[in-house]
Amino acid sequence: MNAPTQSLNVSLGARSYPIYVGSGLLNTSVAAILKQALPNAGEQIVIISNATVAEHYLKPLTDNLQSQGVSRNNIYHALMPDGESYKSLAIYGEIMDLLVKHRLNRDCTIIALGGGVVGDMAGFVAATWQRGVPFIQIPTTLLAQVDSSVGGKTAVNHPGGKNLIGAFHQPSAVVIDINTLRSLPVRELKAGLAEVIKYGVMADSNFFAWLELNMVRLLDRQPEALAHAITRSCEIKADIVAADEHENGIRALLNLGHTFGHAIEAATNYKTWLHGEAVAVGMVMAARLAVQQGYIETTHAKRIEKLIASAGLPIRPPKDMTKKTWLDLMARDKKVKQGKLRFILPTGPGRANIFSNISSEALTRLIDAL
Amino acid sequence: MNAPTQSLNVSLGARSYPIYVGSGLLNTSVAAILKQALPNAGEQIVIISNATVAEHYLKPLTDNLQSQGVSRNNIYHALMPDGESYKSLAIYGEIMDLLVKHRLNRDCTIIALGGGVVGDMAGFVAATWQRGVPFIQIPTTLLAQVDSSVGGKTAVNHPGGKNLIGAFHQPSAVVIDINTLRSLPVRELKAGLAEVIKYGVMADSNFFAWLELNMVRLLDRQPEALAHAITRSCEIKADIVAADEHENGIRALLNLGHTFGHAIEAATNYKTWLHGEAVAVGMVMAARLAVQQGYIETTHAKRIEKLIASAGLPIRPPKDMTKKTWLDLMARDKKVKQGKLRFILPTGPGRANIFSNISSEALTRLIDAL
Repeated sequence: MNAPTQSLNVSLGARSYPIYVGSGLLNTSVAAILKQALPNAGEQIVIISNATVAEHYLKPLTDNLQSQGVSRNNIYHALMPDGESYKSLAIYGEIMDLLVKHRLNRDCTIIALGGGVVGDMAGFVAATWQRGVPFIQIPTTLLAQVDSSVGGKTAVNHPGGKNLIGAFHQPSAVVIDINTLRSLPVRELKAGLAEVIKYGVMADSNFFAWLELNMVRLLDRQPEALAHAITRSCEIKADIVAADEHENGIRALLNLGHTFGHAIEAATNYKTWLHGEAVAVGMVMAARLAVQQGYIETTHAKRIEKLIASAGLPIRPPKDMTKKTWLDLMARDKKVKQGKLRFILPTGPGRANIFSNISSEALTRLIDAL
Repeated sequence: MNAPTQSLNVSLGARSYPIYVGSGLLNTSVAAILKQALPNAGEQIVIISNATVAEHYLKPLTDNLQSQGVSRNNIYHALMPDGESYKSLAIYGEIMDLLVKHRLNRDCTIIALGGGVVGDMAGFVAATWQRGVPFIQIPTTLLAQVDSSVGGKTAVNHPGGKNLIGAFHQPSAVVIDINTLRSLPVRELKAGLAEVIKYGVMADSNFFAWLELNMVRLLDRQPEALAHAITRSCEIKADIVAADEHENGIRALLNLGHTFGHAIEAATNYKTWLHGEAVAVGMVMAARLAVQQGYIETTHAKRIEKLIASAGLPIRPPKDMTKKTWLDLMARDKKVKQGKLRFILPTGPGRANIFSNISSEALTRLIDAL
């Protein structure tokens, strides 16, 4: 059986890879995609997932691999507990123990089957097992499909900050099966829509307008609407990653809403807020800051806020976050350069830019106003 | 103050970097080299070292940095215990804790000051702190100067095997100060000579002949002899790394003697044998296996054995290693591909090749004969 036609490509020279978007790919196409992407791979395959996702998708994936000739004896599983708090160095060590125990070779292939936590962890394992082995991303949440599975950022968290330990390690293919979104909790679907909206805000005013018209269809999980939103999001991300793989420049634009968002996540111990929810509020704050600084009109900020609200996402930060908490947590952000906070702010419909000139007075005013 | 003239260059496109070999560089030139290699670096510098090395060289290094304008407040230290057994995921985690505690940014620079253990650990920390920050290698043992500091291999050990967890991450410069060899214990000097001899065996028959004539001068630590041996070793390694950065092909040649050597190290729990000592015996075994397979003459194998012995290095494995131990441990080697053991064997003066066709019968005969 041949691999399906790829939907798009991430152009990174020797590290280029295809992204496939479609319905039912998990059941029908993973083995063929794997063979096409990695013709010289060894026989051992390690599927890294979590118990919740595995319950739904481990069997169809394994069946597909076996039906294409992969021996059951060469398929290994590492299931991590479900949740952001398990994206830790401790769980990473346990997965490494398992790879050692089963004597995985340097020519094995790792498959990430799950959401962003699984993808980031599996990617970091792939980046560092025997100094790097290939891996395939099979994201099963909307957030992972439009964001974390594309671009090669892998990481684990540290108690002192999110994603502080990690590596750039591009996957060999990304397989996005829209059917997996059927089982996604509605809160997570909405959280994924926050990142979809981000692409419209920062890079494509037409897509932004399309989202305004189609948000109800996306919340209804209509496959055509989802396929369009995911493909367009991946295209925008792929273009930016191709231009700036290691985030020395414009890739930072993808962090629109994230400086504020990470502070919210940290203040709430990564427990009560989903990443996408925090980013949603972060985008509202970025838009307000952009108005305050004179980069955009109030009407545009209101349009952004309205679209975010229409996806059922929060638009205000936790009430109990003090000014001190805000400033302390933002100072820890990875985007801090030479001691200066950097913010990504919208500068017009479908446009954003990076700013290092925001004073703490300006931030204080923004936080006071919310 | 300007950086001294570089001795050689590792050509890797955008990841190219200079190697400096000289006497007194640690005291006079590190700050200038750092500024030249990383003109856009942030102000924070983290020196990773161990207590033994730090006692000798931390102050001169810090003095040099301060004399060139680096503020004392921006220089951080992470000292690990001295020894291969501390090249662990646990110590790695402790160093990460320290970087988090001191809020190191993504534009900090890491300096590895020490032998191979420090260099591998500091390199892996640099590879994975905030998805990768630049680092400078200042190797203070002969082994690190001619081998581990060049080429971007970074790693920590796992109880199940050496260097199983790591990444490729090239340094931004390598600073080899020959004066640091004055304080090196003689046993470690000899262990470093094993890797020097390796380059002669695998890549340069003239250098091999030079080593036969100059081994006494090297053991006497004569600076000119050391500078030549180090520079030539680095040149050979740099050429191979430039041709095959990620060890998909000829870079494996650098593992001459290492499949046997790693087995010896593992069998003795990385405690009683130094890496270079194990590699020395590994080269003797590789030469014998090459004779047995008809790739080289007995006289050539004897010449290799004699040169190794003249450096005061062991030429026989531990007597208590059983055949089963040998075969089990070699099967865990990272060089295993598609389930096949691969050996690097000399094929003539200054030549070697990669072989995957060695039967376990042939190995058994070799082990029996020793």
